[in-house]
Amino acid sequence: MAKETLDRRRALALLGGLGGVLGLGGAGRLLAGAVESPKPNPALPALAKVPWPRVALDPEVVGQRAYAGYNKHHCMYGTFEAIVGPVAEHLGEPYKSFPFDMFTYGVGGVNGWGTLCGCLNGCAAAIQLLSPNPGPLVDELYRWYQSAALPDFQPKGMKFKNVTSVAGSPLCHPSIAKWCEASGKKAYAPERSERCGVLTAAVARKCAMLLNDQAAGKFAAVTTVDARTKACTGCHEKGGEMENMRSKQACAPCHPDETLNARGHAKLKL
Amino acid sequence: MAKETLDRRRALALLGGLGGVLGLGGAGRLLAGAVESPKPNPALPALAKVPWPRVALDPEVVGQRAYAGYNKHHCMYGTFEAIVGPVAEHLGEPYKSFPFDMFTYGVGGVNGWGTLCGCLNGCAAAIQLLSPNPGPLVDELYRWYQSAALPDFQPKGMKFKNVTSVAGSPLCHPSIAKWCEASGKKAYAPERSERCGVLTAAVARKCAMLLNDQAAGKFAAVTTVDARTKACTGCHEKGGEMENMRSKQACAPCHPDETLNARGHAKLKL
Repeated sequence: MAKETLDRRRALALLGGLGGVLGLGGAGRLLAGAVESPKPNPALPALAKVPWPRVALDPEVVGQRAYAGYNKHHCMYGTFEAIVGPVAEHLGEPYKSFPFDMFTYGVGGVNGWGTLCGCLNGCAAAIQLLSPNPGPLVDELYRWYQSAALPDFQPKGMKFKNVTSVAGSPLCHPSIAKWCEASGKKAYAPERSERCGVLTAAVARKCAMLLNDQAAGKFAAVTTVDARTKACTGCHEKGGEMENMRSKQACAPCHPDETLNARGHAKLKL
Repeated sequence: MAKETLDRRRALALLGGLGGVLGLGGAGRLLAGAVESPKPNPALPALAKVPWPRVALDPEVVGQRAYAGYNKHHCMYGTFEAIVGPVAEHLGEPYKSFPFDMFTYGVGGVNGWGTLCGCLNGCAAAIQLLSPNPGPLVDELYRWYQSAALPDFQPKGMKFKNVTSVAGSPLCHPSIAKWCEASGKKAYAPERSERCGVLTAAVARKCAMLLNDQAAGKFAAVTTVDARTKACTGCHEKGGEMENMRSKQACAPCHPDETLNARGHAKLKL
């Protein structure tokens, strides 16, 4: 009997916690340092489903927190924890029992493999956890990342002055190579690590803005697909004559003109 | 007083549950369908840390489960849920409150972007959650994926006969392009979707084997870095003359000889 009473009390506490954040842009707005911890939710099986409830985020606070997170467990942890951590502090369970440290795995495009930039991997996870319509936010964030001069945010406590660069890709390996080219610094220099920390802050901040915009009904995509990529995907993507690949990445960084010409594309006007 | 007693009882139940699986290769071996659900753990803040406790996995069961998972929420969810889901069923909390559906985000190299193969993204997350030394397992799994003829596992209930291909890369986009080339099928054909489902099964199965081997003290890397990649990274990776990039991926698929020659590499013996 004591157990049943306690479980019921916990369920009511959770429902109360969620009810308080339904007005996303209003009273539920998350302030830096706000902590509210309802009791653990006993209705566990339902938690496998997403999205979980969310609150509006302060993008500047998220950016600063991501910079600190990067210095603890790198890029993927940095963005995910900076976006979901404040929600966990505001709502308590089920977020507080989430194994945040798991996202250490995304470092350097997953354990140094140079695949997907960890900042973007962490953001996609956070978007899927929090948004009822994640796809458009992921697409907008990834296109922004591959085409913008980044980092575009300066967290407090930066160790070095930053050089911006355009990654041209959502992948870690070309993103770092382009920065090395722009800065003249080496890929394992302290300045490069610092650049990735500041980039983590910038990407988390942008992601928080997109999540807020969507929650407030104000989200609109502003990025566009470049002409070269449109020409490539017209033949190679869904419904094209070839339809022999899947991708939303910009094509040119990995498939420069010289490669295309060598493969018989010289006749095409790209 | 009632609450304190209950929390203490739950803590003891959890400790009991963990104690039962310390012999990873022996009595704690997970059987298909085995369910054991200790009471929720009240010590929540500690759950942010990984690794969480694990049990030995049945790779064939994991492979079959991943195939089913792919058909529910695609590739990343498929591998992660197939590896971590059985542990959740065996140990109960803290796993049961994990938002498994979150990993839907990795579909098609993250929402169709063609970056990191979702099977590998899900496995890296699972490895980091479960392993005390995740890096070597990620490296071995990724090198195996990019060099092996896959899929090498045939789950029950397959819809089409499979064609194997060598991805040459841990990325979704080249992995699918290589399979389209080998099979003559289109990238959005039902056979391609089925191939990715069977690949999800094969990758999850391999990952379960690696996790088991490590837990039993039998893990040893058997994959090697190809000569071309060694030559490239000798100059461009850490400690090299250029040191202007970071990657563990095979270089040739994205940087074929013709591109290198155009950039002044013709003089180098690669």
